[in-house]
Amino acid sequence: MLDRLPQRVQVYEVGPRDGLQNEPGFIPTEDKVRLVRALIDAGLPRVEITSFVNPRWIPALADADHVAAALEAYEGPAILTALVPNERGLDRALDHGMREVAVFMSASESHNQRNINKTRAETYDAFAPVFARCAAVGVAVRAYVSVVWGCPYEGEVAAAEVLEVTRRLIELGAYQISLGDTIGVGNPAQTRRILDAVLNEVPVERVALHMHDTRGAALANCLVGLEMGVTTFDASLGGLGGCPYAPGASGNLATEDLVNMLHGMGIETGVDLDRLVDAALLVEQLVGRPLTGRALKALVAARQTRRRSSE
Amino acid sequence: MLDRLPQRVQVYEVGPRDGLQNEPGFIPTEDKVRLVRALIDAGLPRVEITSFVNPRWIPALADADHVAAALEAYEGPAILTALVPNERGLDRALDHGMREVAVFMSASESHNQRNINKTRAETYDAFAPVFARCAAVGVAVRAYVSVVWGCPYEGEVAAAEVLEVTRRLIELGAYQISLGDTIGVGNPAQTRRILDAVLNEVPVERVALHMHDTRGAALANCLVGLEMGVTTFDASLGGLGGCPYAPGASGNLATEDLVNMLHGMGIETGVDLDRLVDAALLVEQLVGRPLTGRALKALVAARQTRRRSSE
Repeated sequence: MLDRLPQRVQVYEVGPRDGLQNEPGFIPTEDKVRLVRALIDAGLPRVEITSFVNPRWIPALADADHVAAALEAYEGPAILTALVPNERGLDRALDHGMREVAVFMSASESHNQRNINKTRAETYDAFAPVFARCAAVGVAVRAYVSVVWGCPYEGEVAAAEVLEVTRRLIELGAYQISLGDTIGVGNPAQTRRILDAVLNEVPVERVALHMHDTRGAALANCLVGLEMGVTTFDASLGGLGGCPYAPGASGNLATEDLVNMLHGMGIETGVDLDRLVDAALLVEQLVGRPLTGRALKALVAARQTRRRSSE
Repeated sequence: MLDRLPQRVQVYEVGPRDGLQNEPGFIPTEDKVRLVRALIDAGLPRVEITSFVNPRWIPALADADHVAAALEAYEGPAILTALVPNERGLDRALDHGMREVAVFMSASESHNQRNINKTRAETYDAFAPVFARCAAVGVAVRAYVSVVWGCPYEGEVAAAEVLEVTRRLIELGAYQISLGDTIGVGNPAQTRRILDAVLNEVPVERVALHMHDTRGAALANCLVGLEMGVTTFDASLGGLGGCPYAPGASGNLATEDLVNMLHGMGIETGVDLDRLVDAALLVEQLVGRPLTGRALKALVAARQTRRRSSE
């Protein structure tokens, strides 16, 4: 194993959107913008900065327009993107000159209906004009597929269903499908089965993995993806977000954990791990509690040791 | 990858020894014994119950003789074992009828000297009578090798040095060598290199992995071991112990995280995950704080949901 690892991987940062969307306290717009800038400075190539959903659904991101407006003038190597649930969301994203957006649906019928109040078939229909308009103006569309490794209502989801949803989203025009382990139940054998099914039909560069570390296996699952040629992995700074069960419980895979492992394996990401730690410490300050990422504490301790020994 | 996974794995539980040895508060003997019994009840096949070191070194385990005495009458499927640093420790273990003991040293010269105040060469000499006496009375000896994935004084340790220490310990008579990532810096590519070197000479059944989850990659490293045929993995209930850097930082791989992933992959362990959760909750009560294991919180939440829905 590990004989044919990719030389370079793209880390897709979801912290400012997926991470902050569940925060009980409202983070001021200027702090959100500082966070996005810190992530860009750390070398993240793609950063999801907010979600253009109805503020009644996600009050924590009610300032999506202000965040996007503050970053409109940004011209740099990073691609800033945002979640859009529908055409109204897309209108707002386009108003702010976003070059990329992301849509989302679920692999299972039950979760899709409960989460976005549509059948999967209705969802494709609703997405069609979003994709068409994006294609017309040259805006790239990414698609998230939730509960791929397990659904809270249906349990395990058949690989054939995952493949069907993936196929439909690619036909609609998604440049990449991010397969998500929303409830963090995935194990490496299952990851192998799911990717076997999907990659049998879909080119590997169009597949991303969005693993949650709820049960500690996120990086083990990513390792299977790496081995099978996947080169885009989603992560959230400090492990912020991703519906944790309880205080201290973890959801999203922490960006530092992912980058630290990849760099250790000699896989390039373009991310400066030290600056990433700075960004994570900023988030801890903004949310007022320690984050759940594993590597963060060790990296901060190592930095303190270095500073003491250089004094 | 994952085409030739073992059907069954042995989880070697180090919580009562490696986990508790760093506890600032002294856990009463009867509670330690309760914990060992809870682990046996959960189906753990091997449990390291204490360490027969000088109580001045590890005051948390000053009651090693009492713990061992209370468990002397145990006759069941589990093998109870204990750490012995030297012949005096062995005397105490034999006094209590232990059928298995474990010795420890470091892969790097500097860590070995600082940790046990001997060169590696002197350590082999000091171990010789311990192994000889164990062989004479039919007591199995396991050997831990620390800092295999990295040494706090020397950095990365050459695979050739790891192999040399492993070879010497096997020549002395160790039935199994537990390779430890003491500071939790290991990554899967490195695990592959280390195991390639060791397994080139040492039969795989004589090798165990003792991974730390300090940077979130413990299960990814275990996955490499599984893929390469390793079938014994050390873990500590709830992730207790293993020199965490800071409150909330993690050290040892949590037994629940390991067992949960293995079961998900269809690999048998003989462990009852629900009873393991009970044992972990007992530890949280004994140490008076939440443990750092990832799966524990999710498993407890799932249990509460099940109970509510069956009411």
